[in-house]
Amino acid sequence: MSDSTYYRVERDLLGERQVPAAVYYGVQTLRALENFNISGIPISHFPDLVTALVMVKQACARANRDLGKLDQQQADAIDRACDEIITGELHGEFCVDMIQGGAGTSTNMNSNEVIANRALELLGRQRGEYEHLHPNIHVNMSQSTNDVYPTSLRLAMIFGLRQLEQATRSLQTALSEKGAEFCGVLKMGRTQLQDAVPMSLGQEFSAFATTIGEEVSRLGEMAALLMEVNLGGTAIGTGLNTEAEYRELAIAHLREVSSVAVTPAEDLVEATSDMGGFVLLSGMLKRTAVKLSKICNDLRLLSSGPRCGLNEINLPQRQPGSSIMPGKVNPVIPEAVNQVAFTVIGNDTAITMAAEAGQLQLNVMEPLIGYKLLESIRYLGAAMESLRSDCVVGITANESVCRGYLERSIGLVTALNPHLGYGVTSRIAQQALLTGRSVAELVVEEKLMTPAELERLLRPEAMLGPALQEVKALA
Amino acid sequence: MSDSTYYRVERDLLGERQVPAAVYYGVQTLRALENFNISGIPISHFPDLVTALVMVKQACARANRDLGKLDQQQADAIDRACDEIITGELHGEFCVDMIQGGAGTSTNMNSNEVIANRALELLGRQRGEYEHLHPNIHVNMSQSTNDVYPTSLRLAMIFGLRQLEQATRSLQTALSEKGAEFCGVLKMGRTQLQDAVPMSLGQEFSAFATTIGEEVSRLGEMAALLMEVNLGGTAIGTGLNTEAEYRELAIAHLREVSSVAVTPAEDLVEATSDMGGFVLLSGMLKRTAVKLSKICNDLRLLSSGPRCGLNEINLPQRQPGSSIMPGKVNPVIPEAVNQVAFTVIGNDTAITMAAEAGQLQLNVMEPLIGYKLLESIRYLGAAMESLRSDCVVGITANESVCRGYLERSIGLVTALNPHLGYGVTSRIAQQALLTGRSVAELVVEEKLMTPAELERLLRPEAMLGPALQEVKALA
Amino acid sequence: MSDSTYYRVERDLLGERQVPAAVYYGVQTLRALENFNISGIPISHFPDLVTALVMVKQACARANRDLGKLDQQQADAIDRACDEIITGELHGEFCVDMIQGGAGTSTNMNSNEVIANRALELLGRQRGEYEHLHPNIHVNMSQSTNDVYPTSLRLAMIFGLRQLEQATRSLQTALSEKGAEFCGVLKMGRTQLQDAVPMSLGQEFSAFATTIGEEVSRLGEMAALLMEVNLGGTAIGTGLNTEAEYRELAIAHLREVSSVAVTPAEDLVEATSDMGGFVLLSGMLKRTAVKLSKICNDLRLLSSGPRCGLNEINLPQRQPGSSIMPGKVNPVIPEAVNQVAFTVIGNDTAITMAAEAGQLQLNVMEPLIGYKLLESIRYLGAAMESLRSDCVVGITANESVCRGYLERSIGLVTALNPHLGYGVTSRIAQQALLTGRSVAELVVEEKLMTPAELERLLRPEAMLGPALQEVKALA
Amino acid sequence: MSDSTYYRVERDLLGERQVPAAVYYGVQTLRALENFNISGIPISHFPDLVTALVMVKQACARANRDLGKLDQQQADAIDRACDEIITGELHGEFCVDMIQGGAGTSTNMNSNEVIANRALELLGRQRGEYEHLHPNIHVNMSQSTNDVYPTSLRLAMIFGLRQLEQATRSLQTALSEKGAEFCGVLKMGRTQLQDAVPMSLGQEFSAFATTIGEEVSRLGEMAALLMEVNLGGTAIGTGLNTEAEYRELAIAHLREVSSVAVTPAEDLVEATSDMGGFVLLSGMLKRTAVKLSKICNDLRLLSSGPRCGLNEINLPQRQPGSSIMPGKVNPVIPEAVNQVAFTVIGNDTAITMAAEAGQLQLNVMEPLIGYKLLESIRYLGAAMESLRSDCVVGITANESVCRGYLERSIGLVTALNPHLGYGVTSRIAQQALLTGRSVAELVVEEKLMTPAELERLLRPEAMLGPALQEVKALA
Repeated sequence: MSDSTYYRVERDLLGERQVPAAVYYGVQTLRALENFNISGIPISHFPDLVTALVMVKQACARANRDLGKLDQQQADAIDRACDEIITGELHGEFCVDMIQGGAGTSTNMNSNEVIANRALELLGRQRGEYEHLHPNIHVNMSQSTNDVYPTSLRLAMIFGLRQLEQATRSLQTALSEKGAEFCGVLKMGRTQLQDAVPMSLGQEFSAFATTIGEEVSRLGEMAALLMEVNLGGTAIGTGLNTEAEYRELAIAHLREVSSVAVTPAEDLVEATSDMGGFVLLSGMLKRTAVKLSKICNDLRLLSSGPRCGLNEINLPQRQPGSSIMPGKVNPVIPEAVNQVAFTVIGNDTAITMAAEAGQLQLNVMEPLIGYKLLESIRYLGAAMESLRSDCVVGITANESVCRGYLERSIGLVTALNPHLGYGVTSRIAQQALLTGRSVAELVVEEKLMTPAELERLLRPEAMLGPALQEVKALA
Repeated sequence: MSDSTYYRVERDLLGERQVPAAVYYGVQTLRALENFNISGIPISHFPDLVTALVMVKQACARANRDLGKLDQQQADAIDRACDEIITGELHGEFCVDMIQGGAGTSTNMNSNEVIANRALELLGRQRGEYEHLHPNIHVNMSQSTNDVYPTSLRLAMIFGLRQLEQATRSLQTALSEKGAEFCGVLKMGRTQLQDAVPMSLGQEFSAFATTIGEEVSRLGEMAALLMEVNLGGTAIGTGLNTEAEYRELAIAHLREVSSVAVTPAEDLVEATSDMGGFVLLSGMLKRTAVKLSKICNDLRLLSSGPRCGLNEINLPQRQPGSSIMPGKVNPVIPEAVNQVAFTVIGNDTAITMAAEAGQLQLNVMEPLIGYKLLESIRYLGAAMESLRSDCVVGITANESVCRGYLERSIGLVTALNPHLGYGVTSRIAQQALLTGRSVAELVVEEKLMTPAELERLLRPEAMLGPALQEVKALA
Repeated sequence: MSDSTYYRVERDLLGERQVPAAVYYGVQTLRALENFNISGIPISHFPDLVTALVMVKQACARANRDLGKLDQQQADAIDRACDEIITGELHGEFCVDMIQGGAGTSTNMNSNEVIANRALELLGRQRGEYEHLHPNIHVNMSQSTNDVYPTSLRLAMIFGLRQLEQATRSLQTALSEKGAEFCGVLKMGRTQLQDAVPMSLGQEFSAFATTIGEEVSRLGEMAALLMEVNLGGTAIGTGLNTEAEYRELAIAHLREVSSVAVTPAEDLVEATSDMGGFVLLSGMLKRTAVKLSKICNDLRLLSSGPRCGLNEINLPQRQPGSSIMPGKVNPVIPEAVNQVAFTVIGNDTAITMAAEAGQLQLNVMEPLIGYKLLESIRYLGAAMESLRSDCVVGITANESVCRGYLERSIGLVTALNPHLGYGVTSRIAQQALLTGRSVAELVVEEKLMTPAELERLLRPEAMLGPALQEVKALA
Repeated sequence: MSDSTYYRVERDLLGERQVPAAVYYGVQTLRALENFNISGIPISHFPDLVTALVMVKQACARANRDLGKLDQQQADAIDRACDEIITGELHGEFCVDMIQGGAGTSTNMNSNEVIANRALELLGRQRGEYEHLHPNIHVNMSQSTNDVYPTSLRLAMIFGLRQLEQATRSLQTALSEKGAEFCGVLKMGRTQLQDAVPMSLGQEFSAFATTIGEEVSRLGEMAALLMEVNLGGTAIGTGLNTEAEYRELAIAHLREVSSVAVTPAEDLVEATSDMGGFVLLSGMLKRTAVKLSKICNDLRLLSSGPRCGLNEINLPQRQPGSSIMPGKVNPVIPEAVNQVAFTVIGNDTAITMAAEAGQLQLNVMEPLIGYKLLESIRYLGAAMESLRSDCVVGITANESVCRGYLERSIGLVTALNPHLGYGVTSRIAQQALLTGRSVAELVVEEKLMTPAELERLLRPEAMLGPALQEVKALA
């Protein structure tokens, strides 16, 4: 049995190489596999990226066909090959490491080669018979890695952001429902971990819902910023080797193929090297991470205990919490979300450095930027979904515990401020602290107010918002 | 001479203290001065913050007057005291360290005390006679640090962002003018520091202008996000101790006083602890920093030399560059801007951690967030202004150097791609590299094209954009 | 066919669950798989961690056997099960996501369950017959996640650091050899990208070797810091549920099993929550990353061109560099290493935040810290090995290019400083710059020196170190 | 009155400028003041840096004198001028902004000019009469910014680190004393904010002491790493324009002048551009910051309340905590320390980026690295001192609160584990949680143990360490 059963020979600028007969990728992908062995995370780890790459290739092929640069038969073959990959075929062939030198050239060539070889088959040829349809000449026609790759990254992120927005919205809803459920649970608010003034547990969860809800529109704005693409700019944005009409055509096809309203960047030279949209998106994802982390910190604090902590709420039990302490159950879901948040924040540092490292007409660190952004988007979505379904929806309130804090608290004295003055109330508060007695007791003892007056003012319900009419009547 | 010549006695919750007679601040500021001795940077280092604080105080006093809670005479005195400070008086009295515990309480009390004491003077009283007008009871009426302080920070940042936007616009203009000036200077574009394809130096500078220009609108959007304030929420957002109409009134007055279109946040509990707007603003400032740093890296690279570097442009000479190497002149302005960028990026890390550290109803790390954001805004503005006036406007091109690179380059071969195919041109390129000969020479030698055809295709001017008609005619 | 062919039933604190009959892990691992679906990176991605975990388990079992707490038969079964896993068996069973809540409890329980079930088989029992040998009671005897998990992480890192040190040493050697090879290649040194004074290319590469060489000893010191472990501290460092002699015994066994000189921490309460060793290690890895990135930046800069850059050296060609520009070859290996460096730096941010998030007696974010440190160690090792074998060893010098820069440079004038004074040489340098003439020409023209004097002083070889005798003779 | 009353004229490479007659600095400092207006923080903000710079100048002058290159009279004048500055004179003349381009040239020239002009006065000359003693020719003799500046930065940091070590030691002592004071206060330990097992408050504070104590030796090691200096390397490490004996002499003098055991770097080319020591130092300071932040988080959590939090300890009251909530007192000192920690961590990011940005023979971002490191060192020292004196020494324990938690806790059940088995104790724990009953009650009710057995096992004192003899006797 000859070698050719196992291998086909391909050649490029650097010479000949044997490529396994079974694979659709070619010699340039082979070299990339040898060159980049770092993360072990292949392109196919991000199906959205594979889909986006192939959609761009399909759109370009259609534009080239329209312009008569690609003949109909070749164009059709490329088109059908792309369709197959978009539906999920051959993803395993996209195997180059996400961390790669070459500014994405290996990713682009991986796409070109897989599409070319699959298209060759559809044309009734053998893989590797590039004289009939060539990865560079035909699949990559009118293209450069430098416009195709960033365009694909943007598209992949837009796909990912849609899912993230959905997860964000669902989490908002879950928090909001808890806000409604807990609106009658009165408790003490805390600032700087010190007892402050009354509120309801519902207000606390509604605030979580509000803060998460804000992310939906902000993330949407970021997705919109990504829609401006540099497709058509080729190597450095000058559009060398393209027809004058090509750019508009390619982008129009991409809009149709992807159902994303991509538009051409105005300054293609700038757009080729600019990482601004990515940096801002990462900054925004970091903001979402910070908010999630803060919420998880609060959930862990409010559910601390059960006997030696705040114990205001219960998180659903997900797994035994200790290999040694029987009965211990930990807030494992929020803890995992915290760690996702830290990962996203760390990714932002990496992305920032990579963006800053751009030089002259290109940012060669774009593969890392793309990798880390796609990872952050995915992690945040998974974390939100887990937080919602495995934690938030099952939270219950310890109403009597909450009420107990409220009744014991010194912070109620704040409500007497407008009536007794800051000086007097400060003194009462300090005295309560030192003696362990209650504010009400002390106020009545000193005949500063009658018990009836006090009762009206210190009704916690009256403290959940600005002054009510009845309260003002008293004053 | 009695002690009272030098001191007045004030008291608070923790007891009596002697306050220097000469100062307008009071006992709580005094304690804060003792407690916080870290950065040595006082509030007054940021005049925008002093102004913002006092504008908020003025607006609140007017709202309280309208509601009949503050009598006319007291309200007037407060109003006049605020007016004086807004015009620049007494800024030195705002002396608490920017890094402080207490979530801004010391900054707020510093304002309350200075305003109260100045108002007392205007009422014909002595400083410290708080029975006539009290820092907490009257100046801070219907307020809490927790709504006043974040509102003031936002206002101060909006003021700062206006200046930054102006500096950004000016830098954009300067870069754009250089883009126009250099539009006829042909050169080689470089990707991954390797020779790529032709472009003009004008395109390079125009791209700088474009990328900086984008920041103008983005920064404007960030300023808009900051306009939603939590004034009226008092301690934890429930608006405790305020009248029902107070919030709207106070914000309306603040709009008038500041000429900034502030609006009330919808969920005041959320708004009290939410740092999202700050985190995103910092992310955006980081993006601007990344862009500036990339531009400065390019300017330093393009002006490297004079004899052993790229030497495509000359930066204006600003100072002798070496204590030992005579005649050496360094790109000191871009170098300083790089360092500003790194500072802003470092600040973003600090801000992120501070934002994540918020707990329950408040983020106690807000003073650091405010400090570092105001610093980043100021640094970026100063850096842009310096980059513009001390560097960009004086840049000149070494036209013949640029042209020389172009003529020697192998990258010109890319333009032959659509005519000779990727395989042939790759071979020619490799040969040129190995032999040191020119692409044109080799193409003609191999009779792949006539010298006339070549000349038309390789006119660099033809390579600065998509295919021109004449070029296509050939193909 | 009954369900029990496919499943066995296990139960824990939260109730009963069906566990696939084919797996060695148990109910707690099952729950963890459901709870944590974030990164998709299982424990087994880091074989060093699996090995370390199991070595710790083995050491503890031996200690418990010695103390008569574990009977000989059970101890033997555990011991043999551990041996098998250490030799590489069953790694696929370590399947919990690296990002997990619960402070490593799931990782610990995953180990306990796999070991218990394999040990049960060795005892002739069925998997799941925990009454004969229980994951918690026997495998986890005298242990808590809180001492076992950090100990295992440290051990795994020490294993990883050994490989990293080896890669570091090899890279140092390769750079050092290039330093020797290039010692006769004279060139201009550059500071701030401006021409400075002469040096040899060999000095440049030797400096790379020196800076990488320093990492070997620093990394070794870090590994030593990790050798202090908290094994025996159980839940919070108090050693609850252990025998007095247990700790010393377990650690002695671990030393033997692992061949690593682990020692007991003095303050176990501190050691249980302290992340200091990890933070410093991460800071050190970041330093290594920074150095690698700087070297790669230099390599890319020195090899820029070939015609429009510095072109002092050639990196080996690894793959075609462009899908559109024929003949372009990019420095893909250093580019990938840069991205590894940024990843490590980003990981450091994540690790820092995770370390800061520890609360009271434990740091629950330890799984992320472990994950990111193990990743950074592995990435750096892989990057160094790639940089060495795929790049450094194949670098060649363009000697005449280097020499040409030297001869054209103005910086030579520095050597005349001690003879003509800083003022005169500054003037000469400025004149050379403006006129394009050479320093030597101007000095002779102005009769400041004779050509012979000049020649001796300006011999570049004389400038590579402190003043030589002959030079001083002249002066 | 002529202009010369107010100004003297100086000239440099770029031409003539009027320098105010009153100042000691010269034309190059003047240009630097105009060029760098970013941070507003002058060199003199760091007296250690001024001292270090001048010590280096003094050492170099002495070496040049020894070698006969500087005449005795000039050398003496320089020496005396340096002595004056070291004792604190003329610090205000060191006025260039800490953020500066030029890799420290402006700082170096600022030193050269001030020293030269003061030395001229001591020689009976006028400031500016550089023909008698020149900043570059005489004060900077045998030096370059590129060796003088990094050497000075290292020296300044070593000075700063000594103070930081002292503050660290004092804080350790204070924490340790609290550990001893609280050794009898029994409480529940908490992991993941959930009740774990018993410990003493003394163990908790001793662990703080231990973790801070570790920093003392680590910081000392970092200081030692900084002692290797590149003095004598001049421009790029080749030692151009120095005598062969100069380097050793200069460093010997510097050892004497500074009382710091500085040693020469082996590879001066490497040492000139290497930032490794700074990056690792910053990583170490970050570690200290992380530890401080964790301790402060714990202090704030343990002192939360007074009525709605954990309330295990009381921090000393430092200032009223609220402008609206009477009697509220906040943990302002730990809060400020947290913010210092975030600043140090942010500085580390800036330092990392600056270090990575070095190119070829120099790192031009060194001024930022120096600035931020000196800032971090100072902030940490101030924060530790404040934490010690304003917080830790005044902490008191709420012993009965601590004891109450312990007695109510379910976590006590862990101690029954070795006796009843993990399965039974898990069930008991779960039941206690659901019913609100105590573990002891349930165990006795189920006749699992006698009350007497239970009492012995559940004595919290018995749980603070490994099994005691009596406990084992039972088992």
